[in-house]
Order: sequence, then structure tokens, then C-alpha cells
Amino acid sequence: MIGYGFMGAAHSQGWRVAPRFFDLPLAPTMDVVVGRDAAAVHAAAGKWGWRESATDWREVVARDDIDVVDIVTPGDTHAEIALAALEAGKHVLCEKPLANTVAEAEAMTDAAAAAFARGQRSMVGFTYRRVPATTFARKLVADGRLGEIRQVRAEYLQDWLTDPEAPLTWRLQKDRAGSGSLGDIGAHAVDLAEYITGQRVATVSGILETLVTERPLLGEGVGLSGTASDQRGPVTVDDVALFTGRLESGALASFEATRFRTGRKNGLRVEVSGSKGALAFDLERLNELEFYDATLPPLEQGFRRIYVTEHDHPYLAPWWPPGHMLGYEHGFSHQVVDFVTAVHEGTQPSPSFADGLHIQRVLDAVERSSAAGSAWVPTDA
Amino acid sequence: MIGYGFMGAAHSQGWRVAPRFFDLPLAPTMDVVVGRDAAAVHAAAGKWGWRESATDWREVVARDDIDVVDIVTPGDTHAEIALAALEAGKHVLCEKPLANTVAEAEAMTDAAAAAFARGQRSMVGFTYRRVPATTFARKLVADGRLGEIRQVRAEYLQDWLTDPEAPLTWRLQKDRAGSGSLGDIGAHAVDLAEYITGQRVATVSGILETLVTERPLLGEGVGLSGTASDQRGPVTVDDVALFTGRLESGALASFEATRFRTGRKNGLRVEVSGSKGALAFDLERLNELEFYDATLPPLEQGFRRIYVTEHDHPYLAPWWPPGHMLGYEHGFSHQVVDFVTAVHEGTQPSPSFADGLHIQRVLDAVERSSAAGSAWVPTDA
Amino acid sequence: MIGYGFMGAAHSQGWRVAPRFFDLPLAPTMDVVVGRDAAAVHAAAGKWGWRESATDWREVVARDDIDVVDIVTPGDTHAEIALAALEAGKHVLCEKPLANTVAEAEAMTDAAAAAFARGQRSMVGFTYRRVPATTFARKLVADGRLGEIRQVRAEYLQDWLTDPEAPLTWRLQKDRAGSGSLGDIGAHAVDLAEYITGQRVATVSGILETLVTERPLLGEGVGLSGTASDQRGPVTVDDVALFTGRLESGALASFEATRFRTGRKNGLRVEVSGSKGALAFDLERLNELEFYDATLPPLEQGFRRIYVTEHDHPYLAPWWPPGHMLGYEHGFSHQVVDFVTAVHEGTQPSPSFADGLHIQRVLDAVERSSAAGSAWVPTDA
Amino acid sequence: MIGYGFMGAAHSQGWRVAPRFFDLPLAPTMDVVVGRDAAAVHAAAGKWGWRESATDWREVVARDDIDVVDIVTPGDTHAEIALAALEAGKHVLCEKPLANTVAEAEAMTDAAAAAFARGQRSMVGFTYRRVPATTFARKLVADGRLGEIRQVRAEYLQDWLTDPEAPLTWRLQKDRAGSGSLGDIGAHAVDLAEYITGQRVATVSGILETLVTERPLLGEGVGLSGTASDQRGPVTVDDVALFTGRLESGALASFEATRFRTGRKNGLRVEVSGSKGALAFDLERLNELEFYDATLPPLEQGFRRIYVTEHDHPYLAPWWPPGHMLGYEHGFSHQVVDFVTAVHEGTQPSPSFADGLHIQRVLDAVERSSAAGSAWVPTDA
Repeated sequence: MIGYGFMGAAHSQGWRVAPRFFDLPLAPTMDVVVGRDAAAVHAAAGKWGWRESATDWREVVARDDIDVVDIVTPGDTHAEIALAALEAGKHVLCEKPLANTVAEAEAMTDAAAAAFARGQRSMVGFTYRRVPATTFARKLVADGRLGEIRQVRAEYLQDWLTDPEAPLTWRLQKDRAGSGSLGDIGAHAVDLAEYITGQRVATVSGILETLVTERPLLGEGVGLSGTASDQRGPVTVDDVALFTGRLESGALASFEATRFRTGRKNGLRVEVSGSKGALAFDLERLNELEFYDATLPPLEQGFRRIYVTEHDHPYLAPWWPPGHMLGYEHGFSHQVVDFVTAVHEGTQPSPSFADGLHIQRVLDAVERSSAAGSAWVPTDA
Repeated sequence: MIGYGFMGAAHSQGWRVAPRFFDLPLAPTMDVVVGRDAAAVHAAAGKWGWRESATDWREVVARDDIDVVDIVTPGDTHAEIALAALEAGKHVLCEKPLANTVAEAEAMTDAAAAAFARGQRSMVGFTYRRVPATTFARKLVADGRLGEIRQVRAEYLQDWLTDPEAPLTWRLQKDRAGSGSLGDIGAHAVDLAEYITGQRVATVSGILETLVTERPLLGEGVGLSGTASDQRGPVTVDDVALFTGRLESGALASFEATRFRTGRKNGLRVEVSGSKGALAFDLERLNELEFYDATLPPLEQGFRRIYVTEHDHPYLAPWWPPGHMLGYEHGFSHQVVDFVTAVHEGTQPSPSFADGLHIQRVLDAVERSSAAGSAWVPTDA
Repeated sequence: MIGYGFMGAAHSQGWRVAPRFFDLPLAPTMDVVVGRDAAAVHAAAGKWGWRESATDWREVVARDDIDVVDIVTPGDTHAEIALAALEAGKHVLCEKPLANTVAEAEAMTDAAAAAFARGQRSMVGFTYRRVPATTFARKLVADGRLGEIRQVRAEYLQDWLTDPEAPLTWRLQKDRAGSGSLGDIGAHAVDLAEYITGQRVATVSGILETLVTERPLLGEGVGLSGTASDQRGPVTVDDVALFTGRLESGALASFEATRFRTGRKNGLRVEVSGSKGALAFDLERLNELEFYDATLPPLEQGFRRIYVTEHDHPYLAPWWPPGHMLGYEHGFSHQVVDFVTAVHEGTQPSPSFADGLHIQRVLDAVERSSAAGSAWVPTDA
Repeated sequence: MIGYGFMGAAHSQGWRVAPRFFDLPLAPTMDVVVGRDAAAVHAAAGKWGWRESATDWREVVARDDIDVVDIVTPGDTHAEIALAALEAGKHVLCEKPLANTVAEAEAMTDAAAAAFARGQRSMVGFTYRRVPATTFARKLVADGRLGEIRQVRAEYLQDWLTDPEAPLTWRLQKDRAGSGSLGDIGAHAVDLAEYITGQRVATVSGILETLVTERPLLGEGVGLSGTASDQRGPVTVDDVALFTGRLESGALASFEATRFRTGRKNGLRVEVSGSKGALAFDLERLNELEFYDATLPPLEQGFRRIYVTEHDHPYLAPWWPPGHMLGYEHGFSHQVVDFVTAVHEGTQPSPSFADGLHIQRVLDAVERSSAAGSAWVPTDA
């Protein structure tokens, strides 16, 4: 595993826990964690349960005893590491976003395709696809329970940047983060809407906006936990992304991503409306799915709160008895299950690098649309 | 109409509005309102739209041009007025509780039965039966959609007495009010549970408790709006009523009534659970019914929020387009519709005085159980 | 009152009920209702309680004994009637939309301004401003409780057109209705967002779309209740309106209006987010307001469900005790109160015709933006 | 660890995960898991990550290299194992219920007290105390935010026994399970109500009832997953427990436990109402706490949904960023943290065996009250 921040902790938990609850066809071992700061990464190895730590990812990627490279670094380093790992014959699991630019993502996708032919597997980490309720939502759509999809609303609302004195971390710098709310959380909204509907966003019209344009520079310390200094620097990413997309089928979808929505902590909400039914998912209540069945007798129709914790719901059989909630981190175990299974069976794990590239093209199209006065821009042209 | 307080306003609104929306078989006229204070009742007549006011109810009840007597006075006067009205050959609509004592209620029921044979109709005003969602709930049970009823929970939670300095109004005096939360709001919980399930409470075990035993006496002014004086008097009714009942079928039901439940304003909630389904109603969201259908595929089951505003839902056709909410007062229009229809058709309006007597017996049984250390007491023995 | 459809019923109820609960400074009388079909309007007069009916609105508008003209016809006739009524020296209450075109609305606004100088009052009927929870929401914003407004989301979601076989009524014809979901319900979303925030939408970028382009023509019968015939005609209005607006302060607002959102019956929802707090209102639960106060201790923050039924909440004192819900129609009583009060006091009732004109300009700008590939278009340039 | 069923899986996950997220003062190792079936327990050791398996708990309990004994067997074996473990000088963590009888629980409590003096620690596993929202609820009460506690409602509603053909497992046999819904889930309702209020239940009046009195005997196979046979046997435990309790302060509390409440999967709900505020918790949404602050301005009061995921909420700092939900199993990690910390610091972990004994006495008092016609019975007399 390359990287050991918040995502490193989540992935570690996935690798540790998945084999305990699921019958995996292969037995993954947590071998090496890599980071630039030797002392810090050594501590991380101990904390998160990796056998070794290392500071040179190139060296580790080249090791013969390593089969899988799991990339959890910031987005600007994904391409270089993934390309090297694929070159070295490894299977690669890469946290989202696939890359910070379309060009990088294209190179990675090409490399992944070539590697697939050599027996290597690649996957990008949109774990919200692996929440049982979202997987079940996709199934309802695929089974035709919503009929023809007519409208989609997908929003990801958080509020951790509402304070204008919050410091200028790497997530607020375009060269590190690629974009702001758009790529950080808007990417999840797009991916989840596409995953549930089974349709891609074909064209977009949108606007990006930075609400707080200057913030205190970080003083001593690094990362999100750094303290603010006396000086200020420019915020170079968007705070709010508002865009409309048209799906392949022609249906319109409304998207919103913001880290300024007071009171919303992790509000990834997707609503899908079709000719026979509708559904809604909210990440703040991730064990629930609202489903409206318009084929029931009219007087009895209503949004139904399905508590997605039955054994036969997706991913749930190995966990707890019905009614016992899963949490945020369980998606990372499910990701391990699906990745390891695909490696074992020789199939393409989903979402692929090509899927990640597509998302990157959607984000890029939104940026271009915003720059062009919200003109409509195709995503995969 | 005898009386002109809060209930007088609600009944007046029912008489005024019902004929505008519903095609009534008879055309009621709002003739005389009666009260003890000539000036006040004269003002009330003007405000609520009655042609005349009067101070002597006996005289009005005896008038030949009066066909219906609507009683909205405090419970201690119901029996005397209703008996006189029935004696005088009038149809009688009497606000709940039917009376303050079982003996009074028995006398009224006997008189109503005798009057029925003479062509007079009598009805007691449990208007929450006429909220479309509760009427629809009863229909679901009657249609067998819940299967065999196994458990019931009915609670009526309010918080307007939480302040220990709230004054000692007539509702806190046993000789006027009969009982406290038990009769004031617990009666609604019992009636609504019985109405929805179609079953009566056969035996009860319960406890009554007074949380604030002394309150300031009312100074100048009367009624609920009176101001507090320096002196205090004893609260002689219950603040909290907790009881368990067994329905005719043997199913257990849990009841709670309190005017001390901080944060609950008008929390009349009834939950019914059966072998094939369950439902829940809450008066604070009176346009909604939660319904759980346990015959649907297991993975798709969930409590469904039915927005009870479709034209084919009970009582709704003459009102607004689907999706437009009704409020508290609409039940009083529905009461007028049902009462007038029964008078016209010569049928027994529901709930009858006998139903009101039964509720009184349940309340009485709870009081006796509480006095006997929560021993089980039959209600209609 | 000119017109007697759904809105005529609602306005009639407002005129009838308002004087019973509120102390109006003037005593309105329900004199004449006007419609083209003599028999039908005669019946409507009886049903809704108007003293007379008539078929020639010009004649009625000219009568000396008429002081107020209340216009509840379809939008294409508003201008002609209102201009004549103002010319004739009447006070005018005109249902929304003010008109079907900006040009008509401008003429009406000019006429209203001239009439104001002559002592006449004019008002346009956006009654959702008079739901106690929305009035209270505006007060919270005006009092600074949300701090600086940063983001707004306003949507009006219904589902009554999801069936592609629903007939081609006048609401689906551009020459009668002006526009589709945009003007019918999107206008409410815009008005309510502006009312609560106290800010106007300055520019918009959006898209309109027709999902079902042909529908059965109406056979025999008229209006919404007409039956479908064998032939089909083109739908000439939008089914979905999606647009982004920028408020005067620069804050972005996302709007959506549709009559195709399966499962939503009357989903007018407005969310406002600011630097110190946030709020949300949903018309399907119109007695409630969600409020988030970001100045409370961080561990105790959360969206709070305020049950807006206390006596000191807006408009509530004359109605029922706290906890007793109001419904859809109460806004029409509040409209009567505010209109009559303004007439009596000589003040400008709100929203004025100028406000209605502004809304019309927003709708027009959305149509122009949609036609121009979602380019940004100013609303009041 | 003795036992390896559902609770064994949960405890294993606690032991495995807690050290990864929390800085424990001691480093627990997962040494031996014990069960009667050698092959099955061997498999369990592999699955849940224990170094060894064994079939003779007495032998394991006597081993010198074992410091802690974690008991997750059915309740009828708790006493014997715990007494032996305490005798052998071990720290003991015992899953709830402490025992199946008051006598056993008394013996265990005495032994634990004696062992405490020798430096051993004992704890009973009511993990719902360690859900961050319930821990936070207790703090709000302890801080006086609710004022004087006046009323409590605690219910635990499930529906997994609604099918009368569900087989007769050990949980339905009094000699194995002690009692039915009362001890299985009612115990949690009592414990959580006491934990949050900081008060014990002093007296109770209640009723127990068996709704389905005969069920199919288990055929081949054991445990919950066994299949039904052709023969039937008697259900010897309660299906529904309804009781009223009086807390030490005199406040009344209403309790309900049932495994027949259609549609409720894991509905442990506790409502506490006091003179200054109220709160409500529901295990089906375990990351949320509803709080009503009656000291806020009256027009702004409302139940507030606190999303209990902030770093400064109880237990949350080492987990994920704010807004990322925890699930059911996290309480078991928190239990490990608190138990290990108490062992290290030499303090009494909570809840103690004495607390577990008290709960047992409450359950016993309910059984005696039910047998005595719901007479009031003291719990700790």
C-alpha cells in the first residue's frame, strides 16, 4: 500500500477485516506500507498492521514478493505509481480519483488495458458502490422496477469549509487536488448516479465557484491537521460545483457538490425517478433505501424505508443478524472481496480504470463548461 | 350549539365549511349558540356566525325550530343537557368525553337508545376517527391487510403542563374535568386504537400519577387564558396515565397519556402490528400513514409513508387536488357530513353514545386499577 | 371573483373563513362570481357561497357596488381583466402567475402603479409566502440567524403527468398556460426562495425539456376532468425545468420544477444555507420548519424540526391551540387578511404586481437561456 | 474466549480492531477460543483469528498464560465459567445476561467483589452503552440538560418470530435462555434506560405473554440455523413483555420488549423527558440522537437530529472524519477499550457484575409481577 493517510486507514481496515467475514478465494497478506517520512510510515505500519514499512515506492513496486499495489496517495501521484506498478506486473487498486487530469487517466487506462491482457487486474476505488443499499438500488433499476429512468438528482453536501479561517490545505490547491468539491465529492455523486442508473453522463452544463478565495497558509505541520499561520494564500479550487448532465438515454440529471452546506456532514444523496418507480439513497443513513413502487394500488403508494440489513441483501450474509447496521468502513471490505475475487477469477473488476477515466472526463467537461459560460460540453467525445 | 370555547370554534367551522365542499342531503343552518355570559355569547355568535345567541340552554333546547343540539361544554354538564335535548326530541351531537362518570354516560346511552326508536340520532365527537389517514388505517385492518392483530401501542403525548407554574384551570380539577390526561387525551388514544383495530379493550391494568400536586390558583379572568394568582390549590387529576389493555381478541395494547412530555405538542400516535403487516399514525403528521406490508418480497419490505391526500382516500374527493394537505379542523367537517347523513338516512351515527359509554368504562377501569395497585380490571363487566 | 375553478374554491374559502378567525379592519362580502357558462357559474355561486353569479366580467368589473376584483382565471386572461378592473377603480387581487408574458405583466405593473396613486391596491397571489413556516423562515433569515446566505436549493416536484396517457389539458398548451412546469410550479419555487432569502434572482442558466411530446386530445368535457379522445396533439410546454440562478448577493441557487417526479405529490422544498445556519421547508409537511443553528455548541448542532404551530408563530394566534395543524387552504385566509389590511391601511400589499412581473422575467430568462444553450441571461435587465 | 457464535464473532472483531484505532495501555492477544465441537471450534479459530482452539474450557481457564476470560456462551453456562475463571485469578468479561437466575448472578457478583480485592476485574457486556449517541445522551442528562427526569419510555421491538413456523431454538426454551423477549432484548431496554438516566428501576408492574405456544422442533443441525422437523414442542418463554417501572427518583418508565413487532428489525428506542429537555435514541439509526432543548426561545424549539459523528463526541476521535457512520460492531471495540483501560488502571469497569445482577433482579421482578396479576414488585429489595 502506497500512502497511509485517512484512505490508508480505511483500506487497511478493509484488508484486515474482509478475510474474517468473507470466504475469499485468495488469502491476502498485509506486507508493506510506503511513505516518504520513514518514522511516520514505520509508525503507520505498526498502527495499521503492515509487516514492513518503506520509503521508496519504486523499490517496493518492483519487489517480486508483491502481487498487489494499493494506491492511497493524493491524486497527483496516482498516475506515476500506477503506471510503474502495472509495468512491474502487479495488480493495482487505485483510490479515486483515478488521476488529476484526463491525460494521466488516459495513460493509466491504456496501461491497464495492456496489463489486463497480461493477466493483471486494475480497479479504481469508488467504494460507495459497495454500500449494500446502493448495490441494491442498482439492482432495482436493472430489474426494471423503476421503468424508464426520467430524472436524476445527485448531490454531495458537506460543511467542513464553512469557516473562512479554515487553513489552506492541499485539498484547496489545484496542483495537488486537481479540483475542489468537484473532484473530491462531486466525483462520487457522478459515479454513484451512473452506477445506480447504469447510464453514463453524456454532456454537461455547469458552473464552479470559489466562495472563500483566500485562506490562512498552513504553518508548522502537514496535512489536514496542520495549524494556520499568519499569512494567506489563494484558494485555487472550486468550493461549489453545480451542473446539469444529460445521460445516455437523454434523461436529465442535476448535480451539486459543496463543502459549504451548513449542517450537512456527509450528504451524498441520489434520487432516481422513473416511469414505474423512484428511489432515494442518503449516505448519512447508509443502511436505508427509500423505494417508491408506482405499480402498487394508488391509494397504498408511498416511499418505503427499506432497512437494507437482511441476509439476502447485497454483501450482508456474512455480517450480523438482520437489523444490525453496517458503517462507513464496510465498503472497503466489500471492495477487497470484489477485487480479490476478480483477480482470482480473471475477470475485470468494476469500476475499471476506464470507468475512472470516464469520471475524470465528466469533471473535466464541467470545468470547461463553467469556463465557457455554462455551455453544454460532451464528456466522452 | 351549547358552549362556545375552543370546541365551539371547531364545531362552528365544521358546520360552516362542510356544506361548501360536500353534497349534504340536508342543509344545516347555524341558528343559536348558548352560553351563560350574555355579552360573551353574543360576541361568539357574531364571531362564529350563529344567527342568535342565548343564555338559557333549556329554553333553546325546547324550541320547535331547533332540530339538532350540539354540545361543546365541559364534560360535567353533558349529561344534563343531552338528556334534556333527547327528551325534547332533538338529534344530539355531544363532544367527547360523553360524560364525566360512568353513571351519567349510562343514563345518556339509555336515553339515546330510547330516542333512536323515536327517530332521533345521537353521536359522540371523537373526531380523530375522521382524519382520512385513520379512516384509511381502519380500512386496511378491516380488509385483512395486517392479518391477525397481535400488538398495539397508543400514546397521546403533549407538553403544555410541564411548567409547574401553569395555573390551576378547570382541566386540573376532578369535579369539572372528571380526570386529567386520562380523560382529556387518553380517551382519544383508546378510542382511536379501538376504531382502527375494530376491537374493544376488555381489561386493563394501569397507574395514574400526578407530577405537580399544587398549582397557582387562577386570579381574575376565566378559562385557559386566566392569569395566576398568589395562592395555590391542589391538582386533583392525573398528569400521567400509563396502562396496559387486553383487546377482545386477547392482543395486548400499551397506552400512555401525558401532558408532561417535553417537546411533544400533539403526539397522538397509534401503532398496530399484525401477522401480515403493521401501521403507524401520528397526529402531528396527520396527512400521513405508515404502512408495512409483510407479504411483499422480504428484501423490499419497509415502512411506507402513504401521503393520504388522493381523491379516493376517505373524505378527500371534495377537497383539494392530491398532495394538498388537510389540517386539524377538517375532521369537524367530516363529522358534520357523517352526522347529517345518518340523520337523513336514519342510521346510527358512529361513534354512538354506547361507544362513548364504553370509553368511559375503560377510563373508569383504569382509575380503579390504579387504585388497586395495577390489578387487572374488566371494562364492560 | 372572476373564475371558479380550483383556485376559485380556494379563494372562496379564504374570503369565507378569514373574517371568522381574524379581526379584519373591513368586512368583506362575497358578492358576485363570474364565469362564461351561466349554469355552471350559477352552481358555483351556490356551492362556494357567492350572492350572485354573472357571465360578463366587464359588466361586473364596472359595477359601483364592487370594490375588489379577485382574478382566478387561467393566466392568459389575467392582463385584460386586471387592466379593466384597475381602470374601473377597483382593488385587484390576481392569482399567480401575474400574466403569461413579460409584456402583459409590465402593462399590469404600470397600471397598478398608477392606480396605487389613486388609492387602489393590487396584489399577486403567491400564497405559499403565507404558510406560517415560510413566513417564520423569512424572519429567521432577516434576523441574521443564518448569517450570510451562501447557497439555495429550491425544487417543486410533482408526479401527476408521469402517465403518458394523461390528456392534453390547457396546462399543456403554451398559448393558454404560458409555460409548463416552469410557470405552474417553478414560479412558486423562485418566489418562495426569493421571499425567504429576501433576495432576487439576478441571472439564470437553465434548460427546459418536454418528456412526453404528444398526448391524447381531450374528448367531451372540459378542464382537468375531461376525458381523453382517440386523437393526439403536441405538448407545447416544458415537463421539466432545471436552472441555476445567481442571487443579487452573488450566491448561487439551484432550481428544479417537474410534474414527472414519481412519488412526490406536492414537493415544494426550499433549502437555504448560510454562514451561521441553515433551514429547510417542505410543503408536504407545511407545519414544520427544519432549522440548523451553527452557533450552538458543535457537539449539539443538528437540524431541528420546529413544529410551527405556536400562538406566537406567524398567523397562528387566532387558530387552534399549539400542536394543531393547519392545512393547504389556510394560506388563502392569510392572504385575505394581508390584502384587506393593506387596503384599509393604504399600504402596498406584498407581493405586488412588480414582484409578479419580476417572477415573470425570471421565467422568461430561463426560457431564453434554454433556447441559447443554457447561456447566462439576466432577469431584470 | 469461551463460545464462538454470533457474540463470539462480535467480540473477536472488537479484540482485533480496537488496538488498531485506539491507543490501548495494554496489547491484548487473541490466544484461545473454546467450544465443545473440536472441528467447529477449530474452524472458528481460523475464521475469527484466534491462535488456538480448545474443547475444555476448564483447562483453558486454568492456564497460566491466559489473563482474560471472555464469556460468550448462552446464559445458562455463564455462572459456572465465570466463577471458575475468577477462582483461577482471571479478569472476566461476560456477555449479557450476567446469568439466567438471580441466584447465579448473586454468586457471580460476590465472587467478582472478592476477586476485585485480589486485583481482578469483571465486566458484563451491555455494549449498547458504548454507542457514541447513547454515551452522549447520558452526558446530556448528567449535565442537567434535561432538568429533572419525569418520564421514560424504553422499547426493544424486533419481528423475527412473527412466523409461527419459525423453529423452537434454544432462545425459546426457558431452561436455556432464562426468559424470552424479556431477557434477550428487554434487558437491553432496561439497562440503556438506566444508563442514560443514571437511575435504577426500583419497582415494576408488568405482564409477560407467549403468542405462539408451540413451534416445530429443530431437526438435524443445531443453533439458530437448524431446520424444522415434523414434531412440535412448547415455547416456554415469553414473546412479549410489557411493564411499567418506577425509577429511584419516582419517575415512571414504560417498557416493552417483543420479537413479534412486524416491520421493526432492531428497534431499541429510549425516550427520556425532563423538565428542561428531552431526548430520543433509536438503534436502527444509531449514529443519531434526537435532543429537544426546552430552554431555547419557545418559537425555535424542536427535536434536533444530532449526527453523533464529530471527533469530540464519545469514542469518535480515532475513527473516521466527521459524518462517517459507525455500525453495530463498533460498540465491541469500545468495550475492549474500556475493559482493557480499567484492567490497566485498576478501576472497576462498568457495567459491573453488580450492575448485571441488578438487571437480573429487574427481570425477575417482572416475572413475579406478571405471575401476581401485575402487582407492583420491588427489584432490589
